[in-house]
Amino acid sequence: MAAERLRVAVLGATGSVGQQFVALLDGHPWFEVASLTGSERTTGSRYGESCHWLLETPMPAWAREMPVLPSDPETAGAALAFSALPADQAREIEPRFAQAGTWVCSNASAFRREPDVPILLPEVNPQHLALAAAQRQRGWKGGIICNPNCTSTGLTVALKPLQDAFGLRQVFAVSLQALSGAGYPGVPSMDILDNVIPYIAGEEDKLEWEPRKMLGQLDAGAIHLAEFGISAQVNRVAVTAGHLVCLAVALEKPAAIERVAQVLQDYQSPEVSRALPSAPQPVIVLRTETDRPQPRLDRRTGNGMTTVVGRLRGDAIFDAKMVVLSHNTIRGAAGGAIFNAELLVQQFGLS
Amino acid sequence: MAAERLRVAVLGATGSVGQQFVALLDGHPWFEVASLTGSERTTGSRYGESCHWLLETPMPAWAREMPVLPSDPETAGAALAFSALPADQAREIEPRFAQAGTWVCSNASAFRREPDVPILLPEVNPQHLALAAAQRQRGWKGGIICNPNCTSTGLTVALKPLQDAFGLRQVFAVSLQALSGAGYPGVPSMDILDNVIPYIAGEEDKLEWEPRKMLGQLDAGAIHLAEFGISAQVNRVAVTAGHLVCLAVALEKPAAIERVAQVLQDYQSPEVSRALPSAPQPVIVLRTETDRPQPRLDRRTGNGMTTVVGRLRGDAIFDAKMVVLSHNTIRGAAGGAIFNAELLVQQFGLS
Amino acid sequence: MAAERLRVAVLGATGSVGQQFVALLDGHPWFEVASLTGSERTTGSRYGESCHWLLETPMPAWAREMPVLPSDPETAGAALAFSALPADQAREIEPRFAQAGTWVCSNASAFRREPDVPILLPEVNPQHLALAAAQRQRGWKGGIICNPNCTSTGLTVALKPLQDAFGLRQVFAVSLQALSGAGYPGVPSMDILDNVIPYIAGEEDKLEWEPRKMLGQLDAGAIHLAEFGISAQVNRVAVTAGHLVCLAVALEKPAAIERVAQVLQDYQSPEVSRALPSAPQPVIVLRTETDRPQPRLDRRTGNGMTTVVGRLRGDAIFDAKMVVLSHNTIRGAAGGAIFNAELLVQQFGLS
Amino acid sequence: MAAERLRVAVLGATGSVGQQFVALLDGHPWFEVASLTGSERTTGSRYGESCHWLLETPMPAWAREMPVLPSDPETAGAALAFSALPADQAREIEPRFAQAGTWVCSNASAFRREPDVPILLPEVNPQHLALAAAQRQRGWKGGIICNPNCTSTGLTVALKPLQDAFGLRQVFAVSLQALSGAGYPGVPSMDILDNVIPYIAGEEDKLEWEPRKMLGQLDAGAIHLAEFGISAQVNRVAVTAGHLVCLAVALEKPAAIERVAQVLQDYQSPEVSRALPSAPQPVIVLRTETDRPQPRLDRRTGNGMTTVVGRLRGDAIFDAKMVVLSHNTIRGAAGGAIFNAELLVQQFGLS
Repeated sequence: MAAERLRVAVLGATGSVGQQFVALLDGHPWFEVASLTGSERTTGSRYGESCHWLLETPMPAWAREMPVLPSDPETAGAALAFSALPADQAREIEPRFAQAGTWVCSNASAFRREPDVPILLPEVNPQHLALAAAQRQRGWKGGIICNPNCTSTGLTVALKPLQDAFGLRQVFAVSLQALSGAGYPGVPSMDILDNVIPYIAGEEDKLEWEPRKMLGQLDAGAIHLAEFGISAQVNRVAVTAGHLVCLAVALEKPAAIERVAQVLQDYQSPEVSRALPSAPQPVIVLRTETDRPQPRLDRRTGNGMTTVVGRLRGDAIFDAKMVVLSHNTIRGAAGGAIFNAELLVQQFGLS
Repeated sequence: MAAERLRVAVLGATGSVGQQFVALLDGHPWFEVASLTGSERTTGSRYGESCHWLLETPMPAWAREMPVLPSDPETAGAALAFSALPADQAREIEPRFAQAGTWVCSNASAFRREPDVPILLPEVNPQHLALAAAQRQRGWKGGIICNPNCTSTGLTVALKPLQDAFGLRQVFAVSLQALSGAGYPGVPSMDILDNVIPYIAGEEDKLEWEPRKMLGQLDAGAIHLAEFGISAQVNRVAVTAGHLVCLAVALEKPAAIERVAQVLQDYQSPEVSRALPSAPQPVIVLRTETDRPQPRLDRRTGNGMTTVVGRLRGDAIFDAKMVVLSHNTIRGAAGGAIFNAELLVQQFGLS
Repeated sequence: MAAERLRVAVLGATGSVGQQFVALLDGHPWFEVASLTGSERTTGSRYGESCHWLLETPMPAWAREMPVLPSDPETAGAALAFSALPADQAREIEPRFAQAGTWVCSNASAFRREPDVPILLPEVNPQHLALAAAQRQRGWKGGIICNPNCTSTGLTVALKPLQDAFGLRQVFAVSLQALSGAGYPGVPSMDILDNVIPYIAGEEDKLEWEPRKMLGQLDAGAIHLAEFGISAQVNRVAVTAGHLVCLAVALEKPAAIERVAQVLQDYQSPEVSRALPSAPQPVIVLRTETDRPQPRLDRRTGNGMTTVVGRLRGDAIFDAKMVVLSHNTIRGAAGGAIFNAELLVQQFGLS
Repeated sequence: MAAERLRVAVLGATGSVGQQFVALLDGHPWFEVASLTGSERTTGSRYGESCHWLLETPMPAWAREMPVLPSDPETAGAALAFSALPADQAREIEPRFAQAGTWVCSNASAFRREPDVPILLPEVNPQHLALAAAQRQRGWKGGIICNPNCTSTGLTVALKPLQDAFGLRQVFAVSLQALSGAGYPGVPSMDILDNVIPYIAGEEDKLEWEPRKMLGQLDAGAIHLAEFGISAQVNRVAVTAGHLVCLAVALEKPAAIERVAQVLQDYQSPEVSRALPSAPQPVIVLRTETDRPQPRLDRRTGNGMTTVVGRLRGDAIFDAKMVVLSHNTIRGAAGGAIFNAELLVQQFGLS
């Protein structure tokens, strides 16, 4: 890396994912935040004034005084942008940045289903980054790279070693998702105290599709979806951070549970992403206690970038059951997009 | 029913399920509490003194002054006993009552797997009560009737109409269970605030077996387990009452989702249990909103005796997905045992 | 009472206090809901469609099909209206109803500081109702009656017997207030899970003034504020319902703590309000356990209309300390306004 | 400091405060954990096996393999011991260590009221350490130093600058205390979800006395309690960590609120403790937002060692109101005892 850090923009910086970007970019070895953008309501103010900071770590001092700019490629002036925009705004704004030559690492769902946009998890499918080359045909000088939905993230990381070793046939996934996944103000407290909400709009569709794209084959410039079936059910629970997924998996080549454990534990990132600054160390932690992982106790494993698997055991119908935990605003959102950007910089030599 | 109410005992009356028995028996049309029993620690004191009352409704005045007796058939002096004993004590104490001529309607798991003990849900399998006749061969003048595990309860009620109409092939069940299911003191608050515990000791085994007994055939004095497979995963969440189960079901004869909805909605108790005092009215409520049932809002449906089903939809792998809610300390514990006792009295003419 | 029930309107019926009005008026012996009004957004729809029902008891069947009307005296067509309007709308709309001849029992704060508008607690100051006669001078054919802020309510009920018996000198009050007091959507869950918010806008001013009006003397058509000082600090906590106030009181005539207990326990409503349908039975319950009252366990005492006092003990600086609990959406909001309406009907012979 | 780190013991290391000691001593520049002691139940096992780790940061690797020893001075073999023992055990065990030549920095309340045992907050009353010299007269070669109750801690830090600048006359304090203050298993979840418990055994007595000792004068080898009055009321709330205190203060010399703010903000540790490794930087943070401090957002200020004050405003009865937040298991327990030990080492040259 050059001694000089790359100047980056955070789009939609005042929301809850935007804040997580600001927190995680504080002291990043490669990136320096050059601009923060916000909605019309906040544009023109200082970030420290207009941002209702929700994190337990204090707002970095440098962010406090930065002006909130409009989400415009000209004023943002950065070769790399992190997008924490809502999906509808992302659909409008991200292409403008791509057109203008900026690479956008987006947390929004807007472009995930586009055939030339990769959904990337560098510890799973870094080779899918090549897909983005096709975006030149849109006339873009930059491009758009997506990270998956926060719940798809941990799910896909846990499935990858199983796919590699045994092949996947069918997957049942039931999630217990944290409140921070809904942004801010998000879920009203009267709706969740002493309660569970067994529904999140649009979420099940994402869980049943995104892992199949990420675990699909890139062939002749197109991704062929992985063929296994996924059935997803989602729930919102009273947890601040950390999405839990209860998983049952049918394998192509059934295997003893000890073998499944071994494969999960031994999993390593592809070489290309292994040493990136945000690479999870290790990718997967396999807990062997009867009652782990738990969101409050385990979500910060590996600085919130590690996927924690536990309760691995046989299943009465499929081959294996397990519980997967992933930090939804770190690995599943801002941290994931930063990890993607590191891969991008390393591969494309962005500067 | 005779104008005179039947005198009943509550065994283990000071614990959380015991309290629920006391609350639900207050004003019961058929039963009158004649004795309350407790552990050595509480024996000899007044119930109002030694019971750390946890319910939102006040302790009935009549209970306050009753003495806490030892769990002994002679002193308890009742033809019918409700058992809220822990499993290990139930194994010792319940047979003594049965031997002495008392019918025990037990919430404990101790005898559920005995071949001559029925696990009863009167709206599902009242005919299994006949099984108890075989207990005479143990030399018992009374007997033991079990209600299922609190999570098995709602699960089995929801499966019954599907079994009747379409046959069951496979069932995936993931539960989100309330704190009151763990008794008192139960789950430490530091373990569950801002957290989920993806484990409850022994629970998954119960969920994978009990429904198959209840939905099995009684033939020649023995129950043949229903043949469908169940895969269960359980979680403890920060909810005071109301167990939620996310369910995916493969049917023998696949059916359109509208047909499944119809069958759930139309389900009626067998005639024999339909008019009992605690019979749920209706047995099942099918919610059609996108985000129901929810524990806080729906657990008291039908005075906590109704099973609430919602989010019924197709499934990518099986035939149907749905969410089932059942009040764990009412339908799933004390209310269920009382309902069983009503069936027993009606069928056996106990007095 | 006449056999015919009085037709009433609920203004702002779709919000959280509006819903509580609908629930409490279901089966009311004197009142029958004739119309429900809402904001422009909901006007024209059925109540069952546009109201996001938040209560644990189901929406009454009669309400489900009622149309949501604009908050207009002509279409509402009722001699009595309950107002659950936000303060800014109440300031506009309530006078229009009063002008048109409707009596408005308001839960809003808009008119509480008007010299001719009583803040009423029928078990405390029913004689203040006479103040409303002066509203004729505004040209109103009806009038406006307020109930106090939800936290002022329990506080004032607890202070009344002490004022009567000993006189009040100074009061320190620190509240722990429930989420339902903030309406819906109200407090975001990310702001209150694993947290306390030591601030509620405008609340401390109300607590330091309203009790002095309610405990003041009505003399020559005007209220002279009670002269004692109140210092209030407020907090929002993760509780669904039930406001707790920690109270320290300096008395004019210091008294032994047993005497203070006696006076609290013996307190009775003035005769005029004692037998009204919503009158709390009893007005005050004094708990003698070390750790009561508690919101979850005690908020429904006396159907949520009773004020529960506990932890009464001496104080190192003042004369007595105690904890006061009052159900904020029942006694402190909808139930309080209905109780006021009952007094109004009884005194003014409304029909 | 010598390059060699001082070998220390943690007494009662498996409990929740014991764990916090282990976590905070990980990487401490002066101290190295030489032994961990536990109850009979855990003695003989590895710490990693017998300790139910509750913290969000993982157990340090070095601790995992250490044996749990009995709480005995001979086997513990350390010149300095941190005590996380329960009060009743502390009363027996701590003197044995003191006798044997160990200095005990205790979090237990057992010896706080002894006239020759200082209750120390190095940023408040480091000069009280001199009191410990009198312990020689007990025949002890070491001694006992206490840190205050967790709630007394933040309260006393906030009062100190006010005492210095204006003198204190009277203090009303109402606490909202976190669950971790009750240890483990501590508060049952069924007691606190959707609830507040307005009582903690023995706590109010401590709050009304300990600050007066710490803010008292050391004169001729004895402490003269500060003369101001304190009235304390305590509550347990559903928060994992961070005790909040609502404070109203009457000053000897009344002052404008801006002056009070200045004095709080400008407060500095006495020189002697200012540069110790655990010294809070700064001692007090004064927040000026309307709604801070909040436990979840502010408890980690200054690594959990800083006292956060906010909502400073005038008072209707006294001179000033404010809200004080202190991290109960860091500044108020393990971190406080370690800070005391640092002062002890620096002053007494322990090695």
